[in-house]
Amino acid sequence: MVQIKYLTLKLERDNIEKIINGDKRLISRVITYVENNEDNKHDILKTLYKYTGKAYKIGITGPPGAGKSTITDCLVKLLVKEGFKVGVIAVDPTSPYTGGALLGDRVRMTDSSLLENVFIRSMATRGSLGGLCKSVNDVCNILDASGKDFIILETVGVGQSELDIAKTADTTVVVLVPESGDSIQAMKAGLMEIADLFVINKSDRLGADEILTSLKNMLHLRNPGEDKREIGVIKAIASRNTGIEELLAEITGHGKYLKTTGLFEKKRCKQAENEIKEIVNSGLQKNFWNEKNRNLLEINLKKIVDKETDPYTLSEELFGQ
Amino acid sequence: MVQIKYLTLKLERDNIEKIINGDKRLISRVITYVENNEDNKHDILKTLYKYTGKAYKIGITGPPGAGKSTITDCLVKLLVKEGFKVGVIAVDPTSPYTGGALLGDRVRMTDSSLLENVFIRSMATRGSLGGLCKSVNDVCNILDASGKDFIILETVGVGQSELDIAKTADTTVVVLVPESGDSIQAMKAGLMEIADLFVINKSDRLGADEILTSLKNMLHLRNPGEDKREIGVIKAIASRNTGIEELLAEITGHGKYLKTTGLFEKKRCKQAENEIKEIVNSGLQKNFWNEKNRNLLEINLKKIVDKETDPYTLSEELFGQ
Repeated sequence: MVQIKYLTLKLERDNIEKIINGDKRLISRVITYVENNEDNKHDILKTLYKYTGKAYKIGITGPPGAGKSTITDCLVKLLVKEGFKVGVIAVDPTSPYTGGALLGDRVRMTDSSLLENVFIRSMATRGSLGGLCKSVNDVCNILDASGKDFIILETVGVGQSELDIAKTADTTVVVLVPESGDSIQAMKAGLMEIADLFVINKSDRLGADEILTSLKNMLHLRNPGEDKREIGVIKAIASRNTGIEELLAEITGHGKYLKTTGLFEKKRCKQAENEIKEIVNSGLQKNFWNEKNRNLLEINLKKIVDKETDPYTLSEELFGQ
Repeated sequence: MVQIKYLTLKLERDNIEKIINGDKRLISRVITYVENNEDNKHDILKTLYKYTGKAYKIGITGPPGAGKSTITDCLVKLLVKEGFKVGVIAVDPTSPYTGGALLGDRVRMTDSSLLENVFIRSMATRGSLGGLCKSVNDVCNILDASGKDFIILETVGVGQSELDIAKTADTTVVVLVPESGDSIQAMKAGLMEIADLFVINKSDRLGADEILTSLKNMLHLRNPGEDKREIGVIKAIASRNTGIEELLAEITGHGKYLKTTGLFEKKRCKQAENEIKEIVNSGLQKNFWNEKNRNLLEINLKKIVDKETDPYTLSEELFGQ
């Protein structure tokens, strides 16, 4: 029944209007529908796409334990206080839990203005073959169409999910803690590449000034690429709501810089390119791994382990038939 | 010239024999060739594949700063001391450096038996679209064919690269430090899923017993799946070479368990399946993104940003023509 409901969603003007006006129940159901990879999800996404483009996308990433969620929560509260509507997509590639986690389990939504103006979605991606970026883009588009002024994309870890977030966000904020000092050597190359802005959280702890200094030193050595702006490093104590206004000022400052230099449109083009590549690549895989090819793979696995054939030959056979 | 040399490599019995006998120069050149994605690399990999299957693959992962490299180095030294030949593949998804890093910059190879029996390769994967698993598998096969008894796959971070390593390795070791306590909540779901064995490194530091206890508690709650064995948790201080013999005993114990229960062959089948899927998927993308499709994408990006079309419609057009 649900499927039929959504099959006709495209045609029902009322439902589209409800989404655009921010109806939480409907937004939530559309996201679930799209996440479940239902066959005609593209129809819905196509219809909604023309309402997108207004939301500014903030990526928040960093190592586990850096306090990304707390930073996100503070930022959400500040944005709502300033009159904005906010969407949050929390991507946790290590979580086995999906979908359901909405309002309430993250920000304490005692304030009615928060309840009204914030939509939070948790997404788990573990196991989905390259599915991270694709789903995040879809959910981002739905929230964007629903009239959000800001969308915060929060992800844990170093590695692929962080990269994907940087591809999707307009401004990428990397959160570190004084304790990261140890590991900064390991991470700096990657984080330098994607950060538009650094936050040293828990900056009342020992080592905050050292990490600030070493970070600034490293930033001097970096090759700036197209974005010539000096990368900000902000000290914050999110648990005490300290440094959040400065963070927001830096984010909006970066946004203005992008827009006045023409880099914003370039960035949006690049985002669209990544989005299309994700859609195409997942479509290619879906088409290829039909029952026949899955069977052919299945019956030959043992032969590979026994060295009667090899993965490269079998791949060619799969391609060739 | 190099290409011609390798084009004929398949036919030159001498070169194949050199690789199988562990000729470092040739192994190194074949890896570079394969990493560069040369057209006929599959011919070489096919020829070598029948010599694979002997090496036991150990994955070592964990958060940045946990001491994975030090653990790896200690393990390498112990294995060589016991008469084994060892290959190391260090995958750093955040590093912008590629290829060249070989012997000497990691383990201090002052000992001639290390120089002789160890081959270390660093691989950077940042930016390669889903390329991690594929290249790692190829390099793994080359090292396996070259007569290594053990291959250690070391990767940083939580997220995709960690998952890929777990798919490739026979035994996956997750390294944590007492300071990880903070972040264990965030990571436990994912790490529980992939770990065959935990190491608490730097276990002389404050909090080591707490993390040990909380880890063991969590392990009790886990759903064991097919592998019913109790997951070991080992304390180590890699910088002082403490706990490494116990670690190796646990690894070989896990290997024996897999082999006596028939799980080893199942695991190798699953590894072959993942390997083929990677080869096929990268082939699909390579075929699809020819000049014509790349151009079609390029000229339509601006239209997407201007909402004249959308990513879903353009993807269908790319598929349809």
